[in-house]
Amino acid sequence: MRNKIGTIVKIEGILLAILAVSMSAPLIIALKCNETGCVRAFLTVMISCAAISLLIHLTCGLSRYNLKNRDGFLIVALSWFSVSLAGAVPFYISGSIPDFIDAFFESCSGFSTTGSSILTDIEILPRSILFWRSFTHWLGGMGIIVLMTALLPAFGINGQIVANAETTGPTKDKILAKFSDSAKALYSIYLIMTAAEVILLKIGGLSLYDALIHTFGTVGTGGLSSYNASIGHFNSLYVEIVVAVFMLLAAVNFNLYYIARRRGILQLLRDEEFKFYMMTILTCGGIITVYNCIMNRFSDVGETLVNAFFQVISIMTTTGYATDDYDLWPTFSKFVIFMLFFIGGCSSSTGGGVKCVRILVALKLIKRGISLKIHPNRIAPITLNGKEVKSETSIRISNFIFTYIIVLFAGMILISLNGFDFMTNLSASASCLGNIGPGFNLIGPSMNYAAFSGFSKLICSFLMITGRLELYTVLMLFSKYYRNPDRIK
Amino acid sequence: MRNKIGTIVKIEGILLAILAVSMSAPLIIALKCNETGCVRAFLTVMISCAAISLLIHLTCGLSRYNLKNRDGFLIVALSWFSVSLAGAVPFYISGSIPDFIDAFFESCSGFSTTGSSILTDIEILPRSILFWRSFTHWLGGMGIIVLMTALLPAFGINGQIVANAETTGPTKDKILAKFSDSAKALYSIYLIMTAAEVILLKIGGLSLYDALIHTFGTVGTGGLSSYNASIGHFNSLYVEIVVAVFMLLAAVNFNLYYIARRRGILQLLRDEEFKFYMMTILTCGGIITVYNCIMNRFSDVGETLVNAFFQVISIMTTTGYATDDYDLWPTFSKFVIFMLFFIGGCSSSTGGGVKCVRILVALKLIKRGISLKIHPNRIAPITLNGKEVKSETSIRISNFIFTYIIVLFAGMILISLNGFDFMTNLSASASCLGNIGPGFNLIGPSMNYAAFSGFSKLICSFLMITGRLELYTVLMLFSKYYRNPDRIK
Repeated sequence: MRNKIGTIVKIEGILLAILAVSMSAPLIIALKCNETGCVRAFLTVMISCAAISLLIHLTCGLSRYNLKNRDGFLIVALSWFSVSLAGAVPFYISGSIPDFIDAFFESCSGFSTTGSSILTDIEILPRSILFWRSFTHWLGGMGIIVLMTALLPAFGINGQIVANAETTGPTKDKILAKFSDSAKALYSIYLIMTAAEVILLKIGGLSLYDALIHTFGTVGTGGLSSYNASIGHFNSLYVEIVVAVFMLLAAVNFNLYYIARRRGILQLLRDEEFKFYMMTILTCGGIITVYNCIMNRFSDVGETLVNAFFQVISIMTTTGYATDDYDLWPTFSKFVIFMLFFIGGCSSSTGGGVKCVRILVALKLIKRGISLKIHPNRIAPITLNGKEVKSETSIRISNFIFTYIIVLFAGMILISLNGFDFMTNLSASASCLGNIGPGFNLIGPSMNYAAFSGFSKLICSFLMITGRLELYTVLMLFSKYYRNPDRIK
Repeated sequence: MRNKIGTIVKIEGILLAILAVSMSAPLIIALKCNETGCVRAFLTVMISCAAISLLIHLTCGLSRYNLKNRDGFLIVALSWFSVSLAGAVPFYISGSIPDFIDAFFESCSGFSTTGSSILTDIEILPRSILFWRSFTHWLGGMGIIVLMTALLPAFGINGQIVANAETTGPTKDKILAKFSDSAKALYSIYLIMTAAEVILLKIGGLSLYDALIHTFGTVGTGGLSSYNASIGHFNSLYVEIVVAVFMLLAAVNFNLYYIARRRGILQLLRDEEFKFYMMTILTCGGIITVYNCIMNRFSDVGETLVNAFFQVISIMTTTGYATDDYDLWPTFSKFVIFMLFFIGGCSSSTGGGVKCVRILVALKLIKRGISLKIHPNRIAPITLNGKEVKSETSIRISNFIFTYIIVLFAGMILISLNGFDFMTNLSASASCLGNIGPGFNLIGPSMNYAAFSGFSKLICSFLMITGRLELYTVLMLFSKYYRNPDRIK
């Protein structure tokens, strides 16, 4: 028991050290911009984190404890909550966000790559604070813990257990034999993507600062911006297209890039999840373009097309950047956007939501169900990428979708204690759980979560982290199976 | 092929004959009330139906064709559409509902036991028309086709195939060896329930006419009333309680009554679906009572309690009667009601919706999913009433829920072409598909579907019948498996 707690605390210590190091980035900006209050805030948090981390390192020696599955869940859930908590402190002590619950909400929104905000006027905030706010997206995007997991073996801890509790998607296809190698491979794709977008945005005329902030928001599928008008601020078709393309790339299964590099780009088109993802975007973007044209939302067809696709990609990839307020679109187009709230990106990407592969399997199950009604005795297994999907996997995917719906409803009902209208409550729950960001009505793309009560903000923060960790990791901790692991029924 | 069409046409002929006979009830009322236009309308339809039926009977001789599964689906779907179509004619030719789409909507709403209406002022309609409108609930409630199926053997046709395509619930537990015996047993329970409620409502001071109309709406879990204020019109606690109790009874699995009679009433409490059904009603009713009391919706606690439970029972059983406008309740209470839109009654009852047993299995799957995350290698089957739920059944139930969600979304998106607000569109789709009746906002308990476009009304009518037949029977007809039965994939 002592060993177990020791190991868990030690891992949290390593995490705090990473966090302290990562805060040096906004610190440099604070120093450069002479934001004295912010320099003090970042230094305070960095020194505290480093001190705690060092203390832990000295107290807990090298442990021989073998982590179990359930420990993995505890470590990961604990890590996300503690990182979000520590990440909120600079917002609070710099005075940028005077209420701590607000600061915590903003930090959760950042790390979970949701991108919802309680700030009404973003542009008045210090530059270093805005940088930190967006940097949390980048850290959270690939999973700060995956990074840590790659480092864990150096401390004699089995990283796989921790990774299992965090990585997304219903199946774990390992592209490399050792987990730490896979993590490094995925990180290099993430870094290349980041560098490429920064360069392209710089070419588009953005300052390095703006390019970095919007790249973090894009590749992490987060959606926080340093401008009130989000991407619309730049009023540049080039920037819109670059951001749209990188949002699209960030929500693709990262393993596919690895496969594409080794076996050719055409391999992508063989992946059913990828095809489903692209087809959904093309279909929904197309439908909205046509309908918005009919309803005369824009004078220009080209503008309608770009706006439709940008918004569709932004919601589908769970980013949440905006170039137009879809809440002002005709009802039918709004509904198409609303439907996308429940799909999300591909598995093993930085995107959130239910994930394309699960929706795809659910649709295949429906198709099979209809065929079985006509031929009750004919056993027709469903396949994904040529491989049979076992009934146990089908049940696991169904489970996930049911759990998602239950958590969505529970969140919605608790948020409804605010007394706001239906669409605000439902879209808040769906948006936070799916790590999207904006919603409808009171929390539409040009609005924010400021009007929410403290309780609702905490519920939203909980939903963001729960969604980010694909439900079970967090829900598990409340289950009797967790408290009593020998229990079967 | 000729034989097949002959058999199908013959069955439709028998159905039209039953419909013609059943119209004698409103005809008598029309004669008694001197409603000349209505007498003419009913006579015209009765004679036409009888003539067509006789013609079919004379043309199609006794057929030797063995019905297949897929023929069953076609027959049942065709029957519901043709019955709804024929049932709409009296509304139209009597001039009570001048638009035929409106008349068809009202007829679908009746036969599918939905209870939604396009009428703004119900009370100005002729009494015979109102009677027919409610009588369709009673005919549809137990399934006019189940009645017909019990008669089919007399015509040398296998009724089981037809019944399979119609009966509700994920598992078919036969209480008696022969299907026609089961149908008769269930019908006798239905008749006893009807008689009991009519008598109790008569004792409560209602006229026989009012007692019949509201009994039809209750035992069929329909919800159409002859008064604009629904059950609230009577302003009688006694009537409210009688109606609430019978709504509750009508949405219980009818097979349980048979079992209870043979093995004692306590057997009911052993049934997990029944327990779930009762617990949901008690919990939601309790929560709403407490919250409405806190928010001071009523001066009186007793009144709050009765109103909360009446509305909860009405929605849970998918009836749709109202004694209070829940759309005026505090947001949180409205949300609890909204959640009930997706549960529905028990399987093998007259209630609609997803059905309790499916929700229960889904919840058990979630519980099992969490346990499996902690013990990935431990196989823990889920059980229902002590019996193992096979994974094939779990998948079938998941399938159903997914299909339900997809149809719900599709309906919502098509209805949104109206341009109405979100909650109106979503609740219209949920309400029609779940055979409930009222929804929220524009179609709240004190409103109606009059504002909907003709296209939306047709979509709603389609959803009502699709929901009533538990999706597959109707969806099947659009599937490539239906058109090409030898196709596997």
